[in-house]
Amino acid sequence: MAQARKLYDLAGADPLRRFSPYCWRTKLALAHKGLSVETVPWRFTEKDVIAFSGSRLVPVLVDGDHTVHDSWTIANYLEDAYPDAPSLFGGDGGRAATRFVNAWVDSVLGMPMIRVILTDIYAHVHEKDRDYFRASRHQRYGGTIEEVTADPEAKLAAFRQTLDPMRLALRTQPFLGGQAPLYADYILLGHFLWARCISDIKLLAEDDPLYAWRERMLDALDGMGRKAYGGYPV
Amino acid sequence: MAQARKLYDLAGADPLRRFSPYCWRTKLALAHKGLSVETVPWRFTEKDVIAFSGSRLVPVLVDGDHTVHDSWTIANYLEDAYPDAPSLFGGDGGRAATRFVNAWVDSVLGMPMIRVILTDIYAHVHEKDRDYFRASRHQRYGGTIEEVTADPEAKLAAFRQTLDPMRLALRTQPFLGGQAPLYADYILLGHFLWARCISDIKLLAEDDPLYAWRERMLDALDGMGRKAYGGYPV
Repeated sequence: MAQARKLYDLAGADPLRRFSPYCWRTKLALAHKGLSVETVPWRFTEKDVIAFSGSRLVPVLVDGDHTVHDSWTIANYLEDAYPDAPSLFGGDGGRAATRFVNAWVDSVLGMPMIRVILTDIYAHVHEKDRDYFRASRHQRYGGTIEEVTADPEAKLAAFRQTLDPMRLALRTQPFLGGQAPLYADYILLGHFLWARCISDIKLLAEDDPLYAWRERMLDALDGMGRKAYGGYPV
Repeated sequence: MAQARKLYDLAGADPLRRFSPYCWRTKLALAHKGLSVETVPWRFTEKDVIAFSGSRLVPVLVDGDHTVHDSWTIANYLEDAYPDAPSLFGGDGGRAATRFVNAWVDSVLGMPMIRVILTDIYAHVHEKDRDYFRASRHQRYGGTIEEVTADPEAKLAAFRQTLDPMRLALRTQPFLGGQAPLYADYILLGHFLWARCISDIKLLAEDDPLYAWRERMLDALDGMGRKAYGGYPV
Protein backbone atom coordinates (compact mmCIF):
# COMPACT_ATOMS: atom_id res chain seq x y z
CA MET A 1 0.00 0.00 0.00
CA ALA A 2 1.32 3.43 -0.86
CA GLN A 3 2.25 5.65 2.06
CA ALA A 4 0.25 8.81 2.65
CA ARG A 5 1.48 11.92 0.80
CA LYS A 6 3.02 14.28 3.34
CA LEU A 7 4.25 17.87 3.14
CA TYR A 8 6.42 19.56 5.76
CA ASP A 9 4.92 23.03 5.90
CA LEU A 10 6.25 26.05 7.77
CA ALA A 11 3.98 26.97 10.71
CA GLY A 12 3.85 29.99 12.95
CA ALA A 13 3.29 30.26 16.69
CA ASP A 14 -0.20 29.04 15.87
CA PRO A 15 0.40 25.63 14.25
CA LEU A 16 -2.47 26.18 11.84
CA ARG A 17 -0.96 29.39 10.47
CA ARG A 18 1.05 28.40 7.38
CA PHE A 19 2.67 31.34 5.67
CA SER A 20 5.70 30.15 3.68
CA PRO A 21 5.36 31.34 0.07
CA TYR A 22 7.36 28.34 -1.15
CA CYS A 23 5.13 25.89 0.72
CA TRP A 24 2.11 27.68 -0.77
CA ARG A 25 3.49 27.07 -4.26
CA THR A 26 3.58 23.35 -3.51
CA LYS A 27 0.16 23.21 -1.85
CA LEU A 28 -1.41 25.07 -4.77
CA ALA A 29 0.38 22.80 -7.27
CA LEU A 30 -0.86 19.69 -5.47
CA ALA A 31 -4.42 21.05 -5.48
CA HIS A 32 -4.14 21.93 -9.18
CA LYS A 33 -3.14 18.31 -9.83
CA GLY A 34 -6.03 17.11 -7.66
CA LEU A 35 -3.65 15.43 -5.21
CA SER A 36 -4.49 15.31 -1.53
CA VAL A 37 -1.77 15.81 1.05
CA GLU A 38 -1.31 15.72 4.79
CA THR A 39 0.60 18.79 5.93
CA VAL A 40 2.95 18.56 8.90
CA PRO A 41 3.57 21.79 10.81
CA TRP A 42 7.29 22.54 10.91
CA ARG A 43 9.28 25.33 12.51
CA PHE A 44 12.47 27.00 11.24
CA THR A 45 14.61 25.44 13.96
CA GLU A 46 13.42 21.88 13.45
CA LYS A 47 16.23 21.07 11.04
CA ASP A 48 16.55 17.54 12.46
CA VAL A 49 12.95 16.70 11.53
CA ILE A 50 13.63 17.12 7.81
CA ALA A 51 17.28 16.05 7.82
CA PHE A 52 16.23 12.79 6.10
CA SER A 53 15.38 14.86 3.02
CA GLY A 54 18.82 16.38 2.63
CA SER A 55 17.28 19.85 2.98
CA ARG A 56 17.32 22.33 5.83
CA LEU A 57 14.30 24.18 4.45
CA VAL A 58 10.71 23.42 3.55
CA PRO A 59 8.77 22.53 1.48
CA VAL A 60 9.73 18.88 1.73
CA LEU A 61 7.31 16.51 0.02
CA VAL A 62 7.17 12.81 0.80
CA ASP A 63 5.19 11.08 -1.91
CA GLY A 64 5.21 7.34 -1.36
CA ASP A 65 8.81 6.31 -1.89
CA HIS A 66 9.86 9.70 -3.21
CA THR A 67 11.20 12.53 -1.06
CA VAL A 68 11.53 15.82 -2.93
CA HIS A 69 12.49 19.27 -1.71
CA ASP A 70 12.68 22.78 -3.22
CA SER A 71 9.42 24.14 -4.61
CA TRP A 72 10.61 24.29 -8.23
CA THR A 73 11.93 20.72 -8.10
CA ILE A 74 8.66 19.58 -6.52
CA ALA A 75 6.57 21.26 -9.24
CA ASN A 76 8.62 19.50 -11.90
CA TYR A 77 8.37 16.21 -10.02
CA LEU A 78 4.58 16.51 -9.80
CA GLU A 79 4.29 17.39 -13.49
CA ASP A 80 6.32 14.33 -14.48
CA ALA A 81 4.94 11.89 -11.90
CA TYR A 82 1.30 12.78 -12.62
CA PRO A 83 1.20 13.46 -16.37
CA ASP A 84 -2.51 12.63 -16.62
CA ALA A 85 -3.53 15.20 -14.00
CA PRO A 86 -4.03 18.80 -15.17
CA SER A 87 -0.74 20.28 -16.35
CA LEU A 88 1.05 22.88 -14.22
CA PHE A 89 2.89 24.35 -17.19
CA GLY A 90 0.85 23.77 -20.33
CA GLY A 91 3.64 22.07 -22.25
CA ASP A 92 7.43 22.02 -22.36
CA GLY A 93 7.66 25.64 -23.53
CA GLY A 94 5.50 26.63 -20.59
CA ARG A 95 7.70 24.78 -18.16
CA ALA A 96 10.80 26.49 -19.53
CA ALA A 97 9.35 30.01 -19.54
CA THR A 98 7.78 29.51 -16.10
CA ARG A 99 11.32 28.95 -14.84
CA PHE A 100 11.89 32.63 -15.60
CA VAL A 101 8.78 33.70 -13.70
CA ASN A 102 10.00 31.61 -10.76
CA ALA A 103 13.44 33.20 -10.96
CA TRP A 104 11.98 36.70 -11.17
CA VAL A 105 9.86 36.22 -8.06
CA ASP A 106 12.76 34.69 -6.13
CA SER A 107 15.46 37.16 -7.16
CA VAL A 108 13.46 40.36 -7.63
CA LEU A 109 10.02 40.42 -6.03
CA GLY A 110 10.85 38.73 -2.75
CA MET A 111 12.99 41.50 -1.25
CA PRO A 112 10.65 44.46 -1.85
CA MET A 113 7.86 42.36 -0.32
CA ILE A 114 9.96 41.47 2.71
CA ARG A 115 10.62 45.16 3.30
CA VAL A 116 6.85 45.57 3.63
CA ILE A 117 5.91 42.54 5.72
CA LEU A 118 8.98 41.50 7.72
CA THR A 119 7.71 42.94 11.02
CA ASP A 120 4.44 41.10 10.59
CA ILE A 121 6.18 37.84 9.75
CA TYR A 122 8.27 38.15 12.90
CA ALA A 123 5.14 38.75 14.97
CA HIS A 124 3.76 35.37 13.90
CA VAL A 125 6.91 33.28 14.16
CA HIS A 126 6.93 30.59 16.89
CA GLU A 127 8.67 31.69 20.08
CA LYS A 128 11.34 29.04 19.72
CA ASP A 129 12.15 30.32 16.21
CA ARG A 130 12.46 33.99 17.10
CA ASP A 131 16.19 34.17 17.80
CA TYR A 132 16.95 32.10 14.71
CA PHE A 133 14.67 34.25 12.59
CA ARG A 134 16.13 37.53 13.83
CA ALA A 135 19.73 36.39 13.40
CA SER A 136 19.31 34.70 10.01
CA ARG A 137 17.35 37.62 8.57
CA HIS A 138 19.82 40.16 9.92
CA GLN A 139 22.57 38.31 8.12
CA ARG A 140 20.57 37.79 4.93
CA TYR A 141 19.20 41.33 4.61
CA GLY A 142 22.13 43.24 6.08
CA GLY A 143 20.07 45.01 8.73
CA THR A 144 17.75 44.54 11.66
CA ILE A 145 14.06 43.90 11.09
CA GLU A 146 13.42 47.49 12.11
CA GLU A 147 15.99 48.84 9.64
CA VAL A 148 14.72 46.70 6.76
CA THR A 149 11.14 47.87 7.24
CA ALA A 150 11.83 51.56 7.97
CA ASP A 151 9.89 54.15 5.93
CA PRO A 152 6.94 51.83 5.20
CA GLU A 153 5.23 54.12 2.68
CA ALA A 154 8.28 54.22 0.44
CA LYS A 155 8.69 50.47 0.84
CA LEU A 156 5.09 49.84 -0.20
CA ALA A 157 5.46 52.12 -3.22
CA ALA A 158 8.64 50.32 -4.27
CA PHE A 159 6.95 46.93 -3.90
CA ARG A 160 4.04 48.02 -6.04
CA GLN A 161 6.33 49.34 -8.74
CA THR A 162 8.24 46.07 -8.84
CA LEU A 163 5.05 44.42 -10.05
CA ASP A 164 5.03 46.41 -13.31
CA PRO A 165 5.96 43.52 -15.60
CA MET A 166 3.13 41.44 -14.16
CA ARG A 167 0.75 44.33 -14.69
CA LEU A 168 1.88 44.68 -18.31
CA ALA A 169 1.60 40.94 -18.99
CA LEU A 170 -1.92 40.82 -17.59
CA ARG A 171 -3.09 43.57 -19.93
CA THR A 172 -3.61 40.98 -22.65
CA GLN A 173 -4.54 37.86 -20.68
CA PRO A 174 -6.42 37.18 -17.42
CA PHE A 175 -3.76 34.89 -15.93
CA LEU A 176 -0.03 34.41 -16.36
CA GLY A 177 -1.03 30.91 -17.46
CA GLY A 178 -3.28 32.37 -20.16
CA GLN A 179 -7.04 31.84 -19.93
CA ALA A 180 -6.77 29.84 -16.69
CA PRO A 181 -4.27 29.70 -13.82
CA LEU A 182 -1.10 27.66 -14.18
CA TYR A 183 1.92 27.26 -11.94
CA ALA A 184 3.22 30.72 -12.91
CA ASP A 185 0.14 32.18 -11.22
CA TYR A 186 0.63 30.01 -8.15
CA ILE A 187 4.20 31.24 -7.78
CA LEU A 188 2.87 34.79 -7.55
CA LEU A 189 -0.15 33.87 -5.47
CA GLY A 190 2.17 32.13 -3.01
CA HIS A 191 3.80 35.47 -2.29
CA PHE A 192 0.45 37.18 -1.81
CA LEU A 193 -0.72 34.39 0.52
CA TRP A 194 2.49 34.72 2.48
CA ALA A 195 1.52 38.32 3.17
CA ARG A 196 -2.17 37.59 3.63
CA CYS A 197 -1.58 34.99 6.34
CA ILE A 198 0.43 37.29 8.57
CA SER A 199 -0.32 40.92 7.70
CA ASP A 200 -3.25 43.29 7.28
CA ILE A 201 -1.26 45.66 5.05
CA LYS A 202 -3.10 46.60 1.87
CA LEU A 203 -0.49 45.46 -0.61
CA LEU A 204 -2.49 46.44 -3.69
CA ALA A 205 -4.75 49.41 -4.36
CA GLU A 206 -8.25 48.37 -5.34
CA ASP A 207 -7.98 50.01 -8.74
CA ASP A 208 -4.77 48.13 -9.52
CA PRO A 209 -5.44 45.53 -12.25
CA LEU A 210 -3.46 43.12 -10.11
CA TYR A 211 -6.08 43.46 -7.40
CA ALA A 212 -8.61 41.89 -9.79
CA TRP A 213 -6.12 39.16 -10.72
CA ARG A 214 -5.56 38.40 -7.04
CA GLU A 215 -9.34 38.21 -6.48
CA ARG A 216 -9.60 35.67 -9.30
CA MET A 217 -6.71 33.72 -7.83
CA LEU A 218 -8.18 33.72 -4.32
CA ASP A 219 -11.27 32.13 -5.87
CA ALA A 220 -9.27 29.56 -7.85
CA LEU A 221 -9.02 25.93 -6.73
CA ASP A 222 -12.32 26.16 -4.90
CA GLY A 223 -11.28 29.27 -3.00
CA MET A 224 -8.21 27.65 -1.49
CA GLY A 225 -6.32 30.92 -1.09
CA ARG A 226 -9.27 32.85 0.26
CA LYS A 227 -9.90 30.16 2.86
CA ALA A 228 -6.27 30.07 4.01
CA TYR A 229 -6.19 29.88 7.81
CA GLY A 230 -5.63 33.21 9.52
CA GLY A 231 -5.87 35.16 6.27
CA TYR A 232 -6.50 38.88 6.72
CA PRO A 233 -9.08 40.51 4.48
CA VAL A 234 -7.34 42.23 1.58
CA MET B 1 -0.02 34.71 -56.42
CA ALA B 2 0.85 35.66 -52.86
CA GLN B 3 2.60 39.01 -52.43
CA ALA B 4 6.13 38.99 -51.07
CA ARG B 5 6.51 39.04 -47.28
CA LYS B 6 7.80 42.46 -46.26
CA LEU B 7 9.05 43.90 -42.97
CA TYR B 8 9.51 47.60 -42.28
CA ASP B 9 12.71 47.61 -40.28
CA LEU B 10 14.30 50.55 -38.48
CA ALA B 11 17.53 51.63 -40.19
CA GLY B 12 20.29 53.98 -39.13
CA ALA B 13 22.23 56.55 -41.12
CA ASP B 14 23.63 53.52 -42.92
CA PRO B 15 20.55 51.85 -44.44
CA LEU B 16 22.03 48.40 -43.79
CA ARG B 17 22.41 49.05 -40.06
CA ARG B 18 19.23 47.66 -38.43
CA PHE B 19 19.25 48.04 -34.67
CA SER B 20 15.66 48.06 -33.39
CA PRO B 21 15.28 45.40 -30.70
CA TYR B 22 11.61 44.97 -31.57
CA CYS B 23 12.39 44.46 -35.26
CA TRP B 24 15.04 41.94 -34.24
CA ARG B 25 12.42 39.96 -32.34
CA THR B 26 10.38 39.72 -35.51
CA LYS B 27 13.30 38.88 -37.78
CA LEU B 28 14.45 36.14 -35.40
CA ALA B 29 10.90 34.79 -35.13
CA LEU B 30 10.55 34.68 -38.92
CA ALA B 31 13.88 32.84 -39.20
CA HIS B 32 12.84 30.39 -36.46
CA LYS B 33 9.72 29.65 -38.49
CA GLY B 34 11.81 29.29 -41.64
CA LEU B 35 10.02 32.19 -43.34
CA SER B 36 11.90 34.46 -45.69
CA VAL B 37 11.25 38.18 -45.66
CA GLU B 38 12.24 41.27 -47.56
CA THR B 39 13.20 44.03 -45.12
CA VAL B 40 12.51 47.64 -45.99
CA PRO B 41 14.73 50.24 -44.34
CA TRP B 42 12.61 52.72 -42.41
CA ARG B 43 13.49 55.82 -40.41
CA PHE B 44 11.78 57.17 -37.28
CA THR B 45 10.34 60.16 -39.09
CA GLU B 46 8.84 58.21 -41.99
CA LYS B 47 5.47 57.90 -40.26
CA ASP B 48 3.65 58.33 -43.58
CA VAL B 49 5.32 55.27 -45.08
CA ILE B 50 3.72 52.96 -42.52
CA ALA B 51 0.50 54.91 -41.97
CA PHE B 52 -1.38 52.21 -43.93
CA SER B 53 -0.67 49.81 -41.04
CA GLY B 54 -2.30 51.97 -38.38
CA SER B 55 1.01 52.12 -36.51
CA ARG B 56 3.54 54.89 -36.11
CA LEU B 57 6.27 52.45 -35.13
CA VAL B 58 8.02 49.41 -36.56
CA PRO B 59 8.06 46.46 -36.85
CA VAL B 60 5.27 46.37 -39.41
CA LEU B 61 4.90 43.06 -41.21
CA VAL B 62 3.04 42.69 -44.48
CA ASP B 63 2.39 39.02 -45.11
CA GLY B 64 0.30 38.58 -48.25
CA ASP B 65 -3.05 40.09 -47.39
CA HIS B 66 -2.21 40.53 -43.70
CA THR B 67 -0.65 43.64 -42.20
CA VAL B 68 0.42 43.19 -38.58
CA HIS B 69 2.29 45.51 -36.24
CA ASP B 70 3.72 45.31 -32.72
CA SER B 71 6.32 42.59 -32.17
CA TRP B 72 4.24 40.59 -29.68
CA THR B 73 1.21 40.65 -31.96
CA ILE B 74 3.39 39.62 -34.88
CA ALA B 75 4.88 36.67 -32.95
CA ASN B 76 1.36 35.47 -32.11
CA TYR B 77 0.26 35.98 -35.69
CA LEU B 78 3.19 33.91 -37.00
CA GLU B 79 2.55 31.14 -34.48
CA ASP B 80 -1.10 30.91 -35.51
CA ALA B 81 -0.65 31.45 -39.25
CA TYR B 82 2.19 28.93 -39.56
CA PRO B 83 1.29 26.16 -37.09
CA ASP B 84 3.29 23.53 -38.97
CA ALA B 85 6.53 25.51 -38.80
CA PRO B 86 8.64 25.18 -35.61
CA SER B 87 6.79 26.62 -32.64
CA LEU B 88 7.89 29.92 -31.13
CA PHE B 89 6.39 29.13 -27.74
CA GLY B 90 6.30 25.36 -27.27
CA GLY B 91 2.60 25.21 -26.51
CA ASP B 92 -0.12 27.39 -25.06
CA GLY B 93 1.45 27.50 -21.60
CA GLY B 94 4.66 28.65 -23.21
CA ARG B 95 2.89 31.40 -25.10
CA ALA B 96 1.25 32.64 -21.91
CA ALA B 97 4.39 32.59 -19.78
CA THR B 98 6.48 34.12 -22.57
CA ARG B 99 4.12 37.10 -22.35
CA PHE B 100 5.66 37.74 -18.94
CA VAL B 101 9.20 37.55 -20.29
CA ASN B 102 8.16 40.03 -23.00
CA ALA B 103 6.62 42.35 -20.39
CA TRP B 104 9.69 42.13 -18.16
CA VAL B 105 12.05 43.09 -20.98
CA ASP B 106 9.79 45.95 -22.07
CA SER B 107 9.01 47.39 -18.65
CA VAL B 108 12.19 46.57 -16.70
CA LEU B 109 15.23 45.72 -18.80
CA GLY B 110 14.84 48.34 -21.51
CA MET B 111 15.57 51.41 -19.43
CA PRO B 112 18.79 50.25 -17.72
CA MET B 113 20.04 49.22 -21.17
CA ILE B 114 19.15 52.57 -22.67
CA ARG B 115 21.13 54.29 -19.94
CA VAL B 116 24.17 52.38 -21.21
CA ILE B 117 23.78 52.68 -24.99
CA LEU B 118 21.73 55.81 -25.69
CA THR B 119 24.71 57.89 -26.81
CA ASP B 120 25.74 55.16 -29.22
CA ILE B 121 22.23 54.81 -30.60
CA TYR B 122 22.11 58.53 -31.26
CA ALA B 123 25.45 58.37 -33.08
CA HIS B 124 23.97 55.91 -35.59
CA VAL B 125 20.57 57.52 -36.15
CA HIS B 126 19.95 58.97 -39.62
CA GLU B 127 20.58 62.69 -39.83
CA LYS B 128 16.96 63.41 -40.68
CA ASP B 129 15.86 61.53 -37.53
CA ARG B 130 18.21 63.27 -35.09
CA ASP B 131 15.95 66.11 -33.94
CA TYR B 132 13.02 63.73 -33.60
CA PHE B 133 15.13 61.25 -31.68
CA ARG B 134 16.55 63.83 -29.30
CA ALA B 135 13.17 65.42 -28.58
CA SER B 136 11.18 62.19 -28.23
CA ARG B 137 13.79 60.60 -25.94
CA HIS B 138 14.09 63.72 -23.83
CA GLN B 139 10.38 63.58 -23.25
CA ARG B 140 10.27 59.83 -22.69
CA TYR B 141 13.27 59.59 -20.35
CA GLY B 142 12.91 62.91 -18.59
CA GLY B 143 16.41 64.10 -19.42
CA THR B 144 18.84 64.82 -22.21
CA ILE B 145 20.86 62.00 -23.76
CA GLU B 146 23.85 63.24 -21.81
CA GLU B 147 21.95 63.23 -18.51
CA VAL B 148 20.47 59.77 -19.08
CA THR B 149 23.88 58.26 -19.79
CA ALA B 150 25.90 60.09 -17.12
CA ASP B 151 28.07 57.98 -14.79
CA PRO B 152 28.47 55.09 -17.25
CA GLU B 153 30.13 52.68 -14.82
CA ALA B 154 27.21 52.85 -12.41
CA LYS B 155 24.79 52.51 -15.31
CA LEU B 156 26.56 49.40 -16.59
CA ALA B 157 26.57 47.85 -13.10
CA ALA B 158 22.84 48.57 -12.73
CA PHE B 159 22.13 47.02 -16.13
CA ARG B 160 24.04 43.89 -15.25
CA GLN B 161 22.22 43.53 -11.95
CA THR B 162 18.86 43.85 -13.68
CA LEU B 163 19.67 40.60 -15.47
CA ASP B 164 19.68 38.58 -12.22
CA PRO B 165 16.41 36.72 -12.86
CA MET B 166 17.69 35.62 -16.26
CA ARG B 167 20.92 34.45 -14.67
CA LEU B 168 18.98 32.48 -12.05
CA ALA B 169 16.66 30.90 -14.63
CA LEU B 170 19.59 29.80 -16.79
CA ARG B 171 21.21 27.96 -13.89
CA THR B 172 18.99 24.98 -14.60
CA GLN B 173 18.49 25.16 -18.37
CA PRO B 174 20.62 26.34 -21.33
CA PHE B 175 17.91 28.53 -22.88
CA LEU B 176 14.84 30.36 -21.61
CA GLY B 177 13.00 28.11 -24.06
CA GLY B 178 14.47 25.03 -22.35
CA GLN B 179 16.88 22.81 -24.28
CA ALA B 180 16.69 24.96 -27.43
CA PRO B 181 15.92 28.63 -28.14
CA LEU B 182 12.32 29.78 -28.31
CA TYR B 183 10.78 33.23 -28.68
CA ALA B 184 11.60 34.07 -25.04
CA ASP B 185 15.28 33.85 -25.98
CA TYR B 186 14.76 35.97 -29.08
CA ILE B 187 13.14 38.70 -27.00
CA LEU B 188 16.29 38.92 -24.93
CA LEU B 189 18.64 38.45 -27.87
CA GLY B 190 16.85 41.31 -29.63
CA HIS B 191 18.00 43.64 -26.87
CA PHE B 192 21.58 42.39 -27.07
CA LEU B 193 21.57 42.78 -30.87
CA TRP B 194 20.23 46.31 -30.47
CA ALA B 195 23.37 47.09 -28.47
CA ARG B 196 25.69 45.02 -30.64
CA CYS B 197 24.70 46.83 -33.84
CA ILE B 198 25.51 50.30 -32.53
CA SER B 199 27.91 50.03 -29.59
CA ASP B 200 31.23 48.48 -28.65
CA ILE B 201 30.45 48.56 -24.93
CA LYS B 202 31.15 45.24 -23.20
CA LEU B 203 27.70 44.68 -21.79
CA LEU B 204 28.55 41.37 -20.13
CA ALA B 205 31.68 40.19 -18.36
CA GLU B 206 33.16 37.09 -19.94
CA ASP B 207 32.70 35.04 -16.77
CA ASP B 208 29.01 35.96 -16.59
CA PRO B 209 26.92 32.86 -17.37
CA LEU B 210 24.85 35.12 -19.61
CA TYR B 211 27.89 35.65 -21.77
CA ALA B 212 27.84 31.94 -22.62
CA TRP B 213 24.09 32.10 -23.27
CA ARG B 214 24.61 35.05 -25.61
CA GLU B 215 27.35 33.16 -27.45
CA ARG B 216 24.96 30.25 -27.98
CA MET B 217 22.28 32.66 -29.17
CA LEU B 218 24.62 34.44 -31.58
CA ASP B 219 25.26 31.02 -33.13
CA ALA B 220 21.57 30.12 -33.29
CA LEU B 221 19.61 30.25 -36.55
CA ASP B 222 22.75 29.72 -38.60
CA GLY B 223 24.60 32.53 -36.83
CA MET B 224 22.01 35.14 -37.72
CA GLY B 225 22.80 37.37 -34.74
CA ARG B 226 26.56 37.05 -35.09
CA LYS B 227 26.32 38.03 -38.74
CA ALA B 228 24.15 41.08 -38.08
CA TYR B 229 25.40 43.96 -40.23
CA GLY B 230 27.64 46.39 -38.40
CA GLY B 231 27.80 44.25 -35.26
CA TYR B 232 30.67 45.07 -32.92
CA PRO B 233 32.63 42.20 -31.43
CA VAL B 234 31.35 41.47 -27.92
